[in-house]
Amino acid sequence: MKRIAIVGSTGSIGQNTLRVVERLSDRFKVFALAANSAAGVLAEQAAAFRPSVVAIGNNSHVEEFRRRCGELGIAVPEVVSGEAGLRQIAAAAEVDIVVSAAVGAAGIHPTYSAVAAGKTVALANKEAMVIAGELLRKTASSSGAQIIPVDSEHSAVDQCLRSGRREEVRRLILTASGGPFRDTPAENFQAITPEQALKHPTWQMGKRITIDSATLMNKGLEVIEARWLFDIPAQKIDIMVHPQSVMHSMVEFVDGSVIGQLGTADMRQPIQYALTYPARVASPLPPLDWTSVPRLDFIAPDRKKFPCIDLAYKAIAMGGTAPAVLNAADEVAVQAFLDRKIPFPNIPKLIAESLEAHQLMQADRLDAIIEADAWAREYCRRGL
Amino acid sequence: MKRIAIVGSTGSIGQNTLRVVERLSDRFKVFALAANSAAGVLAEQAAAFRPSVVAIGNNSHVEEFRRRCGELGIAVPEVVSGEAGLRQIAAAAEVDIVVSAAVGAAGIHPTYSAVAAGKTVALANKEAMVIAGELLRKTASSSGAQIIPVDSEHSAVDQCLRSGRREEVRRLILTASGGPFRDTPAENFQAITPEQALKHPTWQMGKRITIDSATLMNKGLEVIEARWLFDIPAQKIDIMVHPQSVMHSMVEFVDGSVIGQLGTADMRQPIQYALTYPARVASPLPPLDWTSVPRLDFIAPDRKKFPCIDLAYKAIAMGGTAPAVLNAADEVAVQAFLDRKIPFPNIPKLIAESLEAHQLMQADRLDAIIEADAWAREYCRRGL
Repeated sequence: MKRIAIVGSTGSIGQNTLRVVERLSDRFKVFALAANSAAGVLAEQAAAFRPSVVAIGNNSHVEEFRRRCGELGIAVPEVVSGEAGLRQIAAAAEVDIVVSAAVGAAGIHPTYSAVAAGKTVALANKEAMVIAGELLRKTASSSGAQIIPVDSEHSAVDQCLRSGRREEVRRLILTASGGPFRDTPAENFQAITPEQALKHPTWQMGKRITIDSATLMNKGLEVIEARWLFDIPAQKIDIMVHPQSVMHSMVEFVDGSVIGQLGTADMRQPIQYALTYPARVASPLPPLDWTSVPRLDFIAPDRKKFPCIDLAYKAIAMGGTAPAVLNAADEVAVQAFLDRKIPFPNIPKLIAESLEAHQLMQADRLDAIIEADAWAREYCRRGL
Repeated sequence: MKRIAIVGSTGSIGQNTLRVVERLSDRFKVFALAANSAAGVLAEQAAAFRPSVVAIGNNSHVEEFRRRCGELGIAVPEVVSGEAGLRQIAAAAEVDIVVSAAVGAAGIHPTYSAVAAGKTVALANKEAMVIAGELLRKTASSSGAQIIPVDSEHSAVDQCLRSGRREEVRRLILTASGGPFRDTPAENFQAITPEQALKHPTWQMGKRITIDSATLMNKGLEVIEARWLFDIPAQKIDIMVHPQSVMHSMVEFVDGSVIGQLGTADMRQPIQYALTYPARVASPLPPLDWTSVPRLDFIAPDRKKFPCIDLAYKAIAMGGTAPAVLNAADEVAVQAFLDRKIPFPNIPKLIAESLEAHQLMQADRLDAIIEADAWAREYCRRGL
């Protein structure tokens, strides 16, 4: 029986994780749940899964959580709160697996704590590896932590890598849906509205990641994640547009053989894979229905039309705190686009300016990374 | 340095094996070469690779081989001949890896000898696993022989299986090009000519296997091979038509994840994989060119139009000597079609009649299998 802490249990990945855990209740026990502010949902989850501890990131929601527990007629579990509370459950001695599913750069703190404590970390918080990949890798190799990706692309790469040895990899091929503007001419980009950009062809996701899919920055960030997750230089990581999102990613080996992972667009598959790794266990998910997806397309991405890709590679090449700046600038730029403050093509523009203006630092300490993140946010807000 | 014996070195797989070995001369040394009758080509190969022994299946070609060696100015290597000669090199103490690439049911003898002698067997002789799969499996598990498939589909399955454990497999999905008559209406099958049937869309292969691709019997035989190679019941082996032949086959695991192997249509890839297994080594083959194969289709095969598929599953279900009868009847029927003695739809008809008429025997001895093979050939010839 493995004991799990889910950081970000009320979000989409967190909720799907609970669905997986519920079905595999003979293997997993929820030790801790954590959310930032969704106290009502968290109380319902506590009623259903009876965790020993609950962490609430935003202190002002603790009382609401206690009240909701009362209304639901359950004993209030131990409650910890604030950033320290999140870190505490991520590193708790009772925990075997930490599901790191908090949204945004704030997720770095509990992720780092879990890695430093040598846990098995099912990593869904995209930002952590982007902004602090090198630090997390080093920390994991000294603590013995195992980081297993939950992201469908990186889960796919992880599964494909099993078909060979690490030194036998020629390149990783991350697939991208291509977003809603794959076939939109560049000259029409100026007029793109938030409503148009929020229509993602295959996955249902949060707003920022949906816009990131439309700019392809999502894929750029995934290249950075992959670089650190799998310790593979960025030059060996490619992107291929694949609109059907059936092939979740591929690995090309030195002998020319390409191994790909395919599946339905249901996050429970990679979540379960991360939890049961290295074992695979039966899943009630409907198998890939070949009759409904008979055709798969693969096209090289248009890097001119989608400059976010090259910006991500540039940030990796710059190293240090550059990826943290890339990520933070992107978050601010996306929000500004959603708020109709800047047009769509200004998202990469603002990011490029931030990278240009940034005073590069080593990214070997968490506070240097957080500082760069804060600098970039401030820089971008001033520029709006 | 691994020492190799290539049984069937003058055929297409044999020649490609030598190209791979030539490039990897720091890893492999050709100890023995064997052919049935192509003495001239064999002498040239002997001149280039200097094997210690050469085996010639058909005794009447031994003199020609010696003469050609003289003309090429090389010392004649030790020559063994006949079925016993082939068996001898396949089991020779000096040999580490036997490439079993003889064409047709005759290849079973050296394959069996290699397996019984506990060799690593790179298996390209399709018939061996079809007609004697159960026997070869049992023999391998007592001798410690390792059988690694060279066939592109089975090599793909082997590579994909590494992404999980054997008991975690839900099903294997063998891909089929669908042959030249994928879109031909069934009512036009009666008029199909050998010339039309010999036009294979993607692979350049021998005549029988090309016709087998047109009837989809090729895929049926591969299901039987896969059943024994991977010890997976036939109900867990499916076929999917994939005209581009880029995805060479797939494995679906119990968690719903599908792992597929993709590559160019060049046999040197699976040959090299079998020789260097479990390692992968750099290959000079051009990588899969995604710009030239941007789209992949997958369609369920039409089992009514291509009854050979169901005949193969039927033979597995019957067990014993039924697969040997299926294979032999198919070979005779294909030849009769090529000789314009029977129309295309009578290939499955003749095979079905043979299975019907056959007195089923246990397939636990090689002579019972050979006998069933001979019976089926005789039965079919009488029926023509």
